[in-house]
Amino acid sequence: MKVAVVKNVLDANERIAQDNRTLFDKQKIFVINLMSSPGAGKTSLVEKTISALKDRYRIAVIEGDIQDTQDADRISALGIPAVQINTGGACHIDGNMIREALPSLELEGIDLLIAENVGNLVCPAEFKIGENAKVMILSTPEGADKPAKYPLMFQESAVMIINKMDLMPYVDFDLERAKRTALAINPNLKIFELSCKNGEGLEAWYSWLSDQIESFRTP
Amino acid sequence: MKVAVVKNVLDANERIAQDNRTLFDKQKIFVINLMSSPGAGKTSLVEKTISALKDRYRIAVIEGDIQDTQDADRISALGIPAVQINTGGACHIDGNMIREALPSLELEGIDLLIAENVGNLVCPAEFKIGENAKVMILSTPEGADKPAKYPLMFQESAVMIINKMDLMPYVDFDLERAKRTALAINPNLKIFELSCKNGEGLEAWYSWLSDQIESFRTP
Repeated sequence: MKVAVVKNVLDANERIAQDNRTLFDKQKIFVINLMSSPGAGKTSLVEKTISALKDRYRIAVIEGDIQDTQDADRISALGIPAVQINTGGACHIDGNMIREALPSLELEGIDLLIAENVGNLVCPAEFKIGENAKVMILSTPEGADKPAKYPLMFQESAVMIINKMDLMPYVDFDLERAKRTALAINPNLKIFELSCKNGEGLEAWYSWLSDQIESFRTP
Repeated sequence: MKVAVVKNVLDANERIAQDNRTLFDKQKIFVINLMSSPGAGKTSLVEKTISALKDRYRIAVIEGDIQDTQDADRISALGIPAVQINTGGACHIDGNMIREALPSLELEGIDLLIAENVGNLVCPAEFKIGENAKVMILSTPEGADKPAKYPLMFQESAVMIINKMDLMPYVDFDLERAKRTALAINPNLKIFELSCKNGEGLEAWYSWLSDQIESFRTP
C-alpha cells in the first residue's frame, strides 16, 4: 500500500516533468538540475557559472530551499532572473514546483536554466523536473565514502563535480577512491575537479556546459 | 489527502517511538539520535566518544545508512556492539527501524545507545526513534547559512556540535552568525565547538554526555 502510494507520486511527477520538458524543448532551453549535500557549493557554482557565461548566454535560475530567500538574493544581485521556491519542509524540488515557478520567469530567449535543488544527497535524485542533465556536487570535506553510501544520486547524475579542491591539503579525501566508486556505480559519469574558491578547474566545466548548450540549440 | 497520509505515518511512528522509549527507560539506556549532513563527521564523533567513554559506560551503536556497512564496520573495529540498518533508499531512520534492530543488540547493561542517522539535514528531524536527545552536527565547510535554510533540524535538536573547527582558517565560516541564527530558532540549543580531527573541544562534549548519562541513571 505504502509502495503503491509512493509509486503514484513518482508517476504523477514523471508526467509533469515531461510537460516541463516539452515546454523547454519548444523554447530551446537547456536545463540543469543541480544537487548536493548542504554546503557543498551549489550556489557558489551557480554564481561562478553566471559570471563566466552571462555574456554568451541568457541564464535564469530557480532556487529551491525549504525556506528563506538567501540564495535567490545572491543570484539576483548578479542581475540574473531568479525565482525562489520555498518547499515548506519538503526535502527536494519536483516537477510541479518547477511548473509553478515558470510563470514568474520570462522564458523567451533563455538559453540556460539552472534549478538549484534543496541540499540533500538522497531524495532529490528520485524526482525528475524536466531537466536535460542532473549535475551533482561532492565536496572534498564530505569524504570519499559518499558514492557507496548514497548511490542513487551518483547513478542518476550525468556529471559529478568534485568541489573544494583547495581544501585537499587539509582534509582526508581519497580522490581516486571517490572517482573509482562513483564510476563503478555510473560508468558514464562525467567528472570535473574544481574549486569555486580559487577558480582552479572551472574552465573545463564552463567548456563542457557551453558545448551542451550549443549542441542542444543546433542539434 | 496527501497531508492526511503523511500525518498517519508520523502518528504511527510516534507510537512506535514511544514503545521504544518505554523499553529504554526500563533498561536505563540513554539514547542519542545523531544527525547531520553527509560527511559532517557523525561516525568520527561516535568513534571518538567510544574511545573516551568506553571504560566508564557500556555503549552500543545503531548505524543507519541507505546501503552498505562501512560505518558499522568502523564501530565494530572498536570492540563495540554495532548493528547496521540499511534503509533501502529511505532518507532517514524511524522508530520501526530501531525496533527491528534492537533484537540484534544485547541491551542488558547498556548505558548509552547512539543511533547514527542517514546523512541528511532535512527528513531525519521529523521522525522520533525513542531518543532522549537529538544531537546534530554542523561542520564548518557547510557554511553559516544552514540554520536559516534547514530550521527544523536546529529546532528539534537539544545539541548542536560545530565540527571541523580545525578547518576554520581555510573556510569562510561565520561562527558567530551560525550560533546566533541557530539560537534564534532554538534558544535552548546547547552548542559545542570541536574538531574530531585534532581533538580540540571534545572534553566539553564528553563531560556533558557523561552528566546526561549519570543523571538519567540516578534521577
